[in-house]
Amino acid sequence: MKVVIVGGVAGGASCAARLRRMDEKAEIILVERGPYVSYANCGLPYHVGGVIEQESSLLVATEQMFRGIFTVDCRTSCEAVAISPKDKTVQLKNHATGETTTESYDKLVLSPGAAPIRPPLPGIDLPGIFSVRTVPDARGIREWLDEGSTGLVEEPATAGFQPLDKKRRAVVVGGGYIGLEMAENLAHRGLDVTIVEMLDQVMAPLDPECARLVERHLEGNGVRVALGDAVAAFRQGKGRALEVHTKSGQVHPADIVILAIGVRPETALAKGAGLTIGERGGIRVDEQMRTSDPHIFAVGDAVEVRDFVTGEWTLIPLAGPANRQGRIVADVIAGRDARFRGTQGTSVIGLFGATVAMTGANEKLLVRLGQTDYEKVYLFPNSHAAYYPGARTVVLKVIFRKSDGRLLGAQGLGRDGVEKRIDALAMAIQMGATVYDLEESELCYAPPYGSAKDPVNFAGMVPADILRGDMPLCHWDALGDGFLLDVRNPAEIEAEAVPGAVNIPLPALRARLGELPRDREILVICRSAVRAYYATRILLQNGFQARNISGGMLARSMLAQEKQEKLVRQ
Amino acid sequence: MKVVIVGGVAGGASCAARLRRMDEKAEIILVERGPYVSYANCGLPYHVGGVIEQESSLLVATEQMFRGIFTVDCRTSCEAVAISPKDKTVQLKNHATGETTTESYDKLVLSPGAAPIRPPLPGIDLPGIFSVRTVPDARGIREWLDEGSTGLVEEPATAGFQPLDKKRRAVVVGGGYIGLEMAENLAHRGLDVTIVEMLDQVMAPLDPECARLVERHLEGNGVRVALGDAVAAFRQGKGRALEVHTKSGQVHPADIVILAIGVRPETALAKGAGLTIGERGGIRVDEQMRTSDPHIFAVGDAVEVRDFVTGEWTLIPLAGPANRQGRIVADVIAGRDARFRGTQGTSVIGLFGATVAMTGANEKLLVRLGQTDYEKVYLFPNSHAAYYPGARTVVLKVIFRKSDGRLLGAQGLGRDGVEKRIDALAMAIQMGATVYDLEESELCYAPPYGSAKDPVNFAGMVPADILRGDMPLCHWDALGDGFLLDVRNPAEIEAEAVPGAVNIPLPALRARLGELPRDREILVICRSAVRAYYATRILLQNGFQARNISGGMLARSMLAQEKQEKLVRQ
Repeated sequence: MKVVIVGGVAGGASCAARLRRMDEKAEIILVERGPYVSYANCGLPYHVGGVIEQESSLLVATEQMFRGIFTVDCRTSCEAVAISPKDKTVQLKNHATGETTTESYDKLVLSPGAAPIRPPLPGIDLPGIFSVRTVPDARGIREWLDEGSTGLVEEPATAGFQPLDKKRRAVVVGGGYIGLEMAENLAHRGLDVTIVEMLDQVMAPLDPECARLVERHLEGNGVRVALGDAVAAFRQGKGRALEVHTKSGQVHPADIVILAIGVRPETALAKGAGLTIGERGGIRVDEQMRTSDPHIFAVGDAVEVRDFVTGEWTLIPLAGPANRQGRIVADVIAGRDARFRGTQGTSVIGLFGATVAMTGANEKLLVRLGQTDYEKVYLFPNSHAAYYPGARTVVLKVIFRKSDGRLLGAQGLGRDGVEKRIDALAMAIQMGATVYDLEESELCYAPPYGSAKDPVNFAGMVPADILRGDMPLCHWDALGDGFLLDVRNPAEIEAEAVPGAVNIPLPALRARLGELPRDREILVICRSAVRAYYATRILLQNGFQARNISGGMLARSMLAQEKQEKLVRQ
Repeated sequence: MKVVIVGGVAGGASCAARLRRMDEKAEIILVERGPYVSYANCGLPYHVGGVIEQESSLLVATEQMFRGIFTVDCRTSCEAVAISPKDKTVQLKNHATGETTTESYDKLVLSPGAAPIRPPLPGIDLPGIFSVRTVPDARGIREWLDEGSTGLVEEPATAGFQPLDKKRRAVVVGGGYIGLEMAENLAHRGLDVTIVEMLDQVMAPLDPECARLVERHLEGNGVRVALGDAVAAFRQGKGRALEVHTKSGQVHPADIVILAIGVRPETALAKGAGLTIGERGGIRVDEQMRTSDPHIFAVGDAVEVRDFVTGEWTLIPLAGPANRQGRIVADVIAGRDARFRGTQGTSVIGLFGATVAMTGANEKLLVRLGQTDYEKVYLFPNSHAAYYPGARTVVLKVIFRKSDGRLLGAQGLGRDGVEKRIDALAMAIQMGATVYDLEESELCYAPPYGSAKDPVNFAGMVPADILRGDMPLCHWDALGDGFLLDVRNPAEIEAEAVPGAVNIPLPALRARLGELPRDREILVICRSAVRAYYATRILLQNGFQARNISGGMLARSMLAQEKQEKLVRQ
């Protein structure tokens, strides 16, 4: 058995190591176009930021290790340039020698990854514009910044360098994971950062109202966020400086530009071999990661995967799934019946002390697919017992199926305790849990860690109350013509009132039911929708029609100001 | 509908609030023997330690709140002293007035909790000996310490007080959750702490080799741990000082003694009413928390619950289950079909910067039940990507069923990222997950948070390798007469060698196979069992019999020194 693996990071490296463990005798050739195998590409932004100081820390496993321990014929600076599926051969070009050789294979595994998108904009190849994919990319950024900073110190008054009291400026094009991580790390290095994002939100996998919180958090940490604007051109400024011209006519000066627009599956090799490419632009594979050629497998960012929740084909360039796919291919080649169950899109990002995490389907996706059998709730529980110091709010958006209570997705944001709730919910989604299961979940509780009712329990209890009919719900973006009842205390109302809402504080509600209409639906408001839930129960049991406005004032504040004005009737 | 709820903390308080939401018209009487309802008893040790500064922070919901918002007739300092199930009445004694009244009920809910065990030892009622159950208990401890400290400053040379340069000493009797939390908090206040524990380990829900790590961690933080010793008597020393005399003949001087031996369900009232008590000493209830009397329910620390994993009756005095049970009873009384699924024993404790957490069955329990259809692994993954600063080892013991791979239990210890893995595993156990599911779990990954292969994935991959026959396993406590092969590097061997083991470093193994016996089973050793796994695969595929010693040297170090000497053949 001779196996050639193309691509030595994540999926390819995992596949090689696992295959050796499964098959001591197989001939395994692992080729990597770049200078390093198995490097930590997820760590690159942190190396740029100086959080990970040594470049060598990023080299998780070396060529020597693959050769020595795994007896894998590991070749770096070696690119697969063509495949002949008919002959079962692959052409390899050695970038060090320029030599091209042909290797036969019994099985071929493609793990070429995805390439940063570089649109053909004027000036895109100017010096100072960087992508962030490889160790040399990160090195280039660091060198550029170090050189600029040296110049700055040596010639403070020269044209082309900012005076010492002005910060250097970075423009990050794209507000996805890499873009935001780069923004944080450049800010960490002392740069003044502007993110330019074509969409009207950062972090496309989040729903927009959740992304708003991220945008405000970035802004609160001094990062400018320019949404709904795209780069028209890059121009050379004075000295090393650049100008980023946008379609809206803005000009952002920049001492460095990071291109983080997104990635595109590397499919040139697969296309050349006549392999089927899916509609999303990735290599199409079956559950065993087999391409349209039975002897060729593909894994990682280059392939389309099934969305575990919706069953749709999707592109999810994440390291975890890539690693699992690599293992699965090794098992399949070794004669095992392994299958990839699809991807949930579980992901997390840390930004200036906050954590944003998510798993499963978001609402945008469900809407795009035309699904209506879902409901959502906004929750604002504490990260741990409120009476223990340091408790912070965890913002959770939980999406579930109305017909059977199945958990579909969750998005979480906060300072603390966010990703562990998303992890528990990710496990729940994997296992097909319903919100009724979440009600009954038993998670770690001690005052520094959580609450006797964990946020994950609330993510079950509140939806279950809705599905059992105990708490009819409505949302700020679909209030209809209900009667707005605000049950907060007068001091809270004074701080922020909802126009048109009548105030009866919760403790006074039972005594003042006579003030409420019996012919209109009463929509109940409070800070986080807890007191409004109590009020809704009182109203319903007293013969009123009532709904709780999900997430209360806290959810309302998640909506952009301009949207609020449209949504809340005056 | 008239419902009397006895006990106003956790289960009782949850029940009252939920019942009001479910039934606006029910007459609800909530009686609490102590002065406060719904107080944060889990926060008491932290209040003693000064971490939670204000006593008022512990009062989660007040009598006024129950009266005002929930229209519950909430009575503190009011004790239920007798039940007449035949008449459906309960006798209530008002401790403020001394008056006793009789209340009728349609449904009675017992949430009396569990009382700290106070064995009838000589001197147990001496001043300076405290239990930790109520707000007044915590207040008493604080006052005792404050007074002692004042005395200390005012009369430094007087007999009965330690000189200023000697720390005051605390003896904590019992090494369970409360005992350890108290030990930490007293140390936090500057006291010199000794834990006296009758068992040969602290934290009985942990298996002993995991408890060893906790004991060492306590000792590393200056807390003395005296295991396998019990208190024989308390004696008055000079002034306020006490002496704790143990059965082994030790005398521990103490300026304060904390009794944290454990708790016993408060069943006097239930017994008096003729309700069935289970073999473990708790009130016996059905899935709907109904006692042997159909009109009387019981919840919380006073009841026996089913162990979710083993199905055995057990006593698990935890706040999370108590709250869920309170909700369930409210639902049942309101005519819903709610059921309690049992308790997994998920729990967590923070100790001097470390976290210890667990869920599901431990090995001790499985052994006691005579179960043999299980296997265990020890894992030592990083809390997050090793290349990102601050990664720490998470110690995991994972127990799973051999026949079908079902996850049975997990114990985790470490500085960081412990309880989130136990939470994910708790959710997995709840949903009936197997180790094959854990292999394919998709959890939050970014370098500051985890690894592309999360510890939870390893908790699936390693067991799955065992169950598929790819990695035969053995344990330090059952090595048999195998040939010990250590595949670590010479430098590691020099630091700590295993007597009798032959060293062939992993990279040299293939070339030196000839040195190994073909007629004996080879037991492979490395640091954490990862390289030993690679070696085991090489050996098996080259026709040798081989097993990996689970957890390698790291697991070996978890065993007590005296045990090691017995276990590892010289």
